[in-house]
Amino acid sequence: MKVLVVGANGQIGKQLVELLLESSEHDVKAMLRKPEQAKDFEEKGAETVIASLEGSVEEIASAAKGCDAVVFAAGSGGHTGQDKTLLVDLDGAVKTVEAAEQAGIDRFIMVSALQAHNRENWSDAIKPYYVAKHYADQALLQSSLNYTIIRPGGLLNEAGTGKVKVAENLDRGSIPRNDVARTILSSLNEEKTFRKSFDVVSGDKPVEEALKTL
Amino acid sequence: MKVLVVGANGQIGKQLVELLLESSEHDVKAMLRKPEQAKDFEEKGAETVIASLEGSVEEIASAAKGCDAVVFAAGSGGHTGQDKTLLVDLDGAVKTVEAAEQAGIDRFIMVSALQAHNRENWSDAIKPYYVAKHYADQALLQSSLNYTIIRPGGLLNEAGTGKVKVAENLDRGSIPRNDVARTILSSLNEEKTFRKSFDVVSGDKPVEEALKTL
Repeated sequence: MKVLVVGANGQIGKQLVELLLESSEHDVKAMLRKPEQAKDFEEKGAETVIASLEGSVEEIASAAKGCDAVVFAAGSGGHTGQDKTLLVDLDGAVKTVEAAEQAGIDRFIMVSALQAHNRENWSDAIKPYYVAKHYADQALLQSSLNYTIIRPGGLLNEAGTGKVKVAENLDRGSIPRNDVARTILSSLNEEKTFRKSFDVVSGDKPVEEALKTL
Repeated sequence: MKVLVVGANGQIGKQLVELLLESSEHDVKAMLRKPEQAKDFEEKGAETVIASLEGSVEEIASAAKGCDAVVFAAGSGGHTGQDKTLLVDLDGAVKTVEAAEQAGIDRFIMVSALQAHNRENWSDAIKPYYVAKHYADQALLQSSLNYTIIRPGGLLNEAGTGKVKVAENLDRGSIPRNDVARTILSSLNEEKTFRKSFDVVSGDKPVEEALKTL
């Protein structure tokens, strides 16, 4: 599969691009917001494309051309205002869903957030972010795409363990970003994740084995 | 009909409550965020209920008890941050939709914004607000409710004329808040507005006549 990584310059996106480059099964196209971000990726051998999540659906669809799957791993980040939460995390994500439909790409993986589907479990501190993620996930659920919505717990920068716990509902927990990237990679062709949404945190099962329990 | 006005203390909400009080066909229940807002309404003869759009669906459903219709006329307003745009204009609106479903109230009127259904027509200045309104409208469209989505142009404080122009798509235009309130009032029982969404601006047709053209 050739995979468009949206948000390739983000913390999960970068690690996913590396994993895709190492993989013998997949090719990668890194979608980047700024031309100056491309050099690092091209030096590693990744194809790149410049497109903005604040641009049109057509712009994103054109960036996705030739790909077989789209991974939405972008996030406006904690340092920007809530206007970007609305424009990027919500509308940018939904535009990417629409772009995949427009480009005829059926497989779509969304990086969401633990319990984004249960309003009563949204922490006060980042509730606006949860609102954005929730409605982006809803749009994907209602699309025609073969989706997987991956909802990781608190994101850590420590090294990955390759071991996770997945379920439709997990109370709480954290997970290294590297293990989120591995979960995305292993989900791409894993039929047990097709048209499914799940929470994921660190656990004791190897990623591939854990996904088979879904 | 007994009508729950959500956002009764807002600029459109207040005028709608007045119109409902004058009407012989309807009763009104004003939903307010703060207890100190109730006195003014009660002096005019309006029933009031205190509930927060940042509270639970159950809290809003309980406020709606005994009503036959819900009007969402709330807005976080330009003076608050975009976190409130996410929490009130988007999630608060969708919680109100869910509350109506939970309370078994079928009729729902949403006050949206001109062209909220067409992303390419969102003005840069208030684009985050449009994102919130758009996805709230989407949730209502996908609900089981008998909805009317009213999308007014630029809101004016001048006196109403009682004359409007309505259509599925209007380029641009403005409208006194009083005329928006009249459009809501006349839509309540007008079957031509059932399960419809439309733009509305000032025009040359009396409100009731204009709605019959939908």
